[in-house]
Amino acid sequence: MKTSYHDRLPDVPAPPAFPRDPQDGRGPRAEVVSYGDDRHGRGLRALAELTGESGAGVVESLRDIAPDFADWIIEFSYGDVLSRPGLDRRTRQLATVAALTALGNAQPQLRVHIEGALNVGCRAQEIVEVMLQTTVYAGFPAVINALGVAREVFARRGAD
Amino acid sequence: MKTSYHDRLPDVPAPPAFPRDPQDGRGPRAEVVSYGDDRHGRGLRALAELTGESGAGVVESLRDIAPDFADWIIEFSYGDVLSRPGLDRRTRQLATVAALTALGNAQPQLRVHIEGALNVGCRAQEIVEVMLQTTVYAGFPAVINALGVAREVFARRGAD
Amino acid sequence: MKTSYHDRLPDVPAPPAFPRDPQDGRGPRAEVVSYGDDRHGRGLRALAELTGESGAGVVESLRDIAPDFADWIIEFSYGDVLSRPGLDRRTRQLATVAALTALGNAQPQLRVHIEGALNVGCRAQEIVEVMLQTTVYAGFPAVINALGVAREVFARRGAD
Amino acid sequence: MKTSYHDRLPDVPAPPAFPRDPQDGRGPRAEVVSYGDDRHGRGLRALAELTGESGAGVVESLRDIAPDFADWIIEFSYGDVLSRPGLDRRTRQLATVAALTALGNAQPQLRVHIEGALNVGCRAQEIVEVMLQTTVYAGFPAVINALGVAREVFARRGAD
Amino acid sequence: MKTSYHDRLPDVPAPPAFPRDPQDGRGPRAEVVSYGDDRHGRGLRALAELTGESGAGVVESLRDIAPDFADWIIEFSYGDVLSRPGLDRRTRQLATVAALTALGNAQPQLRVHIEGALNVGCRAQEIVEVMLQTTVYAGFPAVINALGVAREVFARRGAD
Amino acid sequence: MKTSYHDRLPDVPAPPAFPRDPQDGRGPRAEVVSYGDDRHGRGLRALAELTGESGAGVVESLRDIAPDFADWIIEFSYGDVLSRPGLDRRTRQLATVAALTALGNAQPQLRVHIEGALNVGCRAQEIVEVMLQTTVYAGFPAVINALGVAREVFARRGAD
Repeated sequence: MKTSYHDRLPDVPAPPAFPRDPQDGRGPRAEVVSYGDDRHGRGLRALAELTGESGAGVVESLRDIAPDFADWIIEFSYGDVLSRPGLDRRTRQLATVAALTALGNAQPQLRVHIEGALNVGCRAQEIVEVMLQTTVYAGFPAVINALGVAREVFARRGAD
Repeated sequence: MKTSYHDRLPDVPAPPAFPRDPQDGRGPRAEVVSYGDDRHGRGLRALAELTGESGAGVVESLRDIAPDFADWIIEFSYGDVLSRPGLDRRTRQLATVAALTALGNAQPQLRVHIEGALNVGCRAQEIVEVMLQTTVYAGFPAVINALGVAREVFARRGAD
Repeated sequence: MKTSYHDRLPDVPAPPAFPRDPQDGRGPRAEVVSYGDDRHGRGLRALAELTGESGAGVVESLRDIAPDFADWIIEFSYGDVLSRPGLDRRTRQLATVAALTALGNAQPQLRVHIEGALNVGCRAQEIVEVMLQTTVYAGFPAVINALGVAREVFARRGAD
Repeated sequence: MKTSYHDRLPDVPAPPAFPRDPQDGRGPRAEVVSYGDDRHGRGLRALAELTGESGAGVVESLRDIAPDFADWIIEFSYGDVLSRPGLDRRTRQLATVAALTALGNAQPQLRVHIEGALNVGCRAQEIVEVMLQTTVYAGFPAVINALGVAREVFARRGAD
Repeated sequence: MKTSYHDRLPDVPAPPAFPRDPQDGRGPRAEVVSYGDDRHGRGLRALAELTGESGAGVVESLRDIAPDFADWIIEFSYGDVLSRPGLDRRTRQLATVAALTALGNAQPQLRVHIEGALNVGCRAQEIVEVMLQTTVYAGFPAVINALGVAREVFARRGAD
Repeated sequence: MKTSYHDRLPDVPAPPAFPRDPQDGRGPRAEVVSYGDDRHGRGLRALAELTGESGAGVVESLRDIAPDFADWIIEFSYGDVLSRPGLDRRTRQLATVAALTALGNAQPQLRVHIEGALNVGCRAQEIVEVMLQTTVYAGFPAVINALGVAREVFARRGAD
C-alpha cells in the first residue's frame, strides 16, 4: 500500500468578505489582537471572523426561543473564550473540529466550524487531517460521519 | 471582569533527550518528514518523538495481554495516522488534547498526550488554552477533569 | 449585558384530555398516587399521563419488531420507575429533559418528553430553563440541538 | 415483587451555615431573587448558596492553572446560568444531578452537586429518585456509579 | 405479563451472492481461515464477506475526500482487526451491533453491520436480542433508535 | 508485520461452583432454559450463573441506598432481559463486554461481566478479541482502558 503524503484536496478560497487578521499570512503564529473590554462587541467580532454568516445565523435563529442563550454564545463562547489570544485562530478552529468530531453528535456545529476553519485560512486538507487523526481517539464511525459533513461544506464552498 | 491575555504558566522545558524536528523552531509551520515505507519503524519513531517514554511504556505494557494490539498502536496509530505530514506536530498534539478532553473518559491517554504536546514544543499555556475552549463544546466537567490531569503533568515535568 | 429574568415564552396549554393529578395545582409538591400492584396497568396509566399519545405511539410502533421490549417500556420504565411517588411529576419530567439533553443523541425521546413535560403542567419556559442550564454540564452543541426540538414541539402544541 | 413507595433514607440536615431562600419553605415554588447586575458578585453568592464550600473549593483550586476559567465558573456558570429565577433552586439541583448522572463521567462534579442539592433543601430520597429514573435514559452502569457517589456524600453529611 | 421465548421474526435469507464460510453451517463455532499476509487483499475479502455491497459502497464513497482513510478501513479495520480468527464471524457481527447500539450516534454504521450480521448467517431475532440486552447497559433511547434502523434493514432485505 | 492468529492467553478455568448449562459443552449454540414465570427467582438464578459472586455482591451493596433498584437489577436486568433464550450465554456475555468497552466509563461493570464471561465458558482470548475489535468502533483509548480491567480480572482468576 502506498500512502501519499501530499495534499489531495484543492484549496477552497476564503470569501474575500471576511476580515483577515493582518498578522495571519501563513507566517509565524499570529495572535488575536485584543478588542477591548466590551464582551458583546468583542464576541460579535470574533463570531464574524471565526464563523462568518453561518455562526451569526445560528445565533439569531435562537432569539425566538432563548434570547439570553443567544447572548451567551456571543458574550461567553466568543467574547470570553474563542477570542482569547493564547492560540492563533487556525489552531483554535482545528482544535474545535477535533473536539466536535470526537463528540460524534454535533454535526450542525461541525458544519459551522468547518466553514469557520476555511474562513480563517485553514486548508481543506488540514481540516481533513484533524478528522483523520481523531480515528485513533474516537473510532471510525465518528470520523466517517464527520467527513460526510466536510464533503458537503467543501462542495458548497468550492463552487465558483 | 478583567481577563488577562498574557501567558500565566511558565514554560516547561522539553527534556533534551527527545529529538526535535529541525524545521520546528517556532517559525513557519513544519512538516513531518516522511520516514519511508516501513510502517513499524516509522511508527516507533513517531511514537518516540510525539510521546517520549510514556507512550512507549503504554505500548509495552500491553504486550502481555494483546501483543497484536500493541503493534496496531505502533503501526496504525503512529505509523499510518499520527506521522502524516499534513499537519505540523504541535497542531497534531493540540488537536489530540482537544479530542481527549471532549471525550471525558480518557484521562490516562490525556496524560500521555499532554506530555507529548510539551515534547514537541507546545507551551503549557497553549495546552491549557485548548482545554479551555473545549468548555464551549463539551461543558465544564470535562474541562475541569482535564485540567486536573494537566496540573499533574506540569508539576512532574517542571520540577528541576 | 442585560439579562432578563422574566418568562419569555407564552404558556402552552395542556390538552384538556389528559388527566391531572388533583394535588397538582401549582401548590405544594404533589406526589403521584400509587395505582396498585398491576405493573402493566400502572405503566399504561403513567405512560398516558406523562406522555399522552406520543409515548403510546412509540410503544405500539415497536410491537412489530420487539413486542417484549414494548412491554418493558410499559412495565419497567413506566410501571416501576417513572410512576414512583418520590418525586412530583413536573420534577420528573424536567429531570428527564435534563438527562436527554445532556446525552445529545436522543432527540426522538426528547420530543416525547418535552410533550410530556407540557402535559403534566410544566411551563414552556421551565423546559427551556432546564435545557439552558445543561450548557454548563454538557456544552453548547447539546443544548442548541435540544432547543431545536423544543421549538418544533412548542410550535406544534401552541397552535390553536 | 413488592415496591415500596415511601422514603427509605432519613433526611440529611443541611448545615445551618448556608443561607436559605426565605421563600423556600417547602411551600409553593420559590424563585431566586435577582441580586442585581454584578455578574461576579451574583455568581459568588449563587455558588455559595447552591454548593457551599465544596464548589468554592473547586473554583479556588483552579486558580493556579487557569484563573480565567475559575472566573468563568463564577461569572458564567453561576452568575449567568444557575442563578436565573426561572426555576426554583431545588429543581435546578435535581436537574443537574440528572444530567451529571446521565453523562457517566463527571463523578467529581456529581459529588459537588449532590451536596448542593442537600444544601438547598432537597431530601436525600429525592436525589436518589432522580438517579433511579436516569436508569431508563442512560442504563444501569451510569446509575450504579452515581449511587456510589451519593452514598459517600450522604455518609459524610449525615454523620453527627 | 407473558414473555414469549420463541423467535418472533421470520428469518431473512442471506443473498446467495455472498460467499459463505464452509465451516459455518450452524454447527460448531467456525473460525475464519487466514487469507495470508496481504493486508489489502485480506481486507477486501473480509469487507465483502462481512458487509457485502454496503460496506464497499461506504469505502468507495470516501475516496474523493480521504483516499488514505478508505485504505485504512480496508487494511486496518478489515485486514488487521475484523478478519482475525479468534472469534467466529457471527459473534463478531453481533458484538459489533452491541457496540454501535451502545454508542448511540453511529446509525449509518449500524445499518451496514446489521446487513453484515444477516450476511454471515445471524438470524434477525439474534440481532434484535443483542440490541434488547443493550437496554441494560445504555438505556432505552439508544435501543429504540437502533431498533428503528433494524426495522428498515429487515424490511429492505426481507422483501422478495 | 507478522500477525499471529493463535490464542495467546492460557485458558482461565471457571470456578467449579458455578452451574453449567448442560447444553453448553462447546458444541452447537445452547439456549438458556426458561426457568418459569417467577421474575425474581429467574433473575437470581441468571445473576448467579452469569456473574457469580461479583454480581450478587454489587446488587446487595445497593440495598442500603436503593433497595428497589437492587430488585430492578435482579428482576428486570437479569429476570427479563439477560435470561432470555434467544442468544446463548457466551454470546450474551461477549456482546455485553463489547457494549461496556465502547461506553468507556463503566469499568466496574466491565469487571463484573469479564468475570461473567469466564464463568459461562468464554475463553480469555475471546474476551480480548471482542475488546480488540471495539477499537474500530470506539477508538484506542476505550480499548486500552478495558484491557487494563481484563488484565486485573485474569490475574485474579488465573492464580491457583
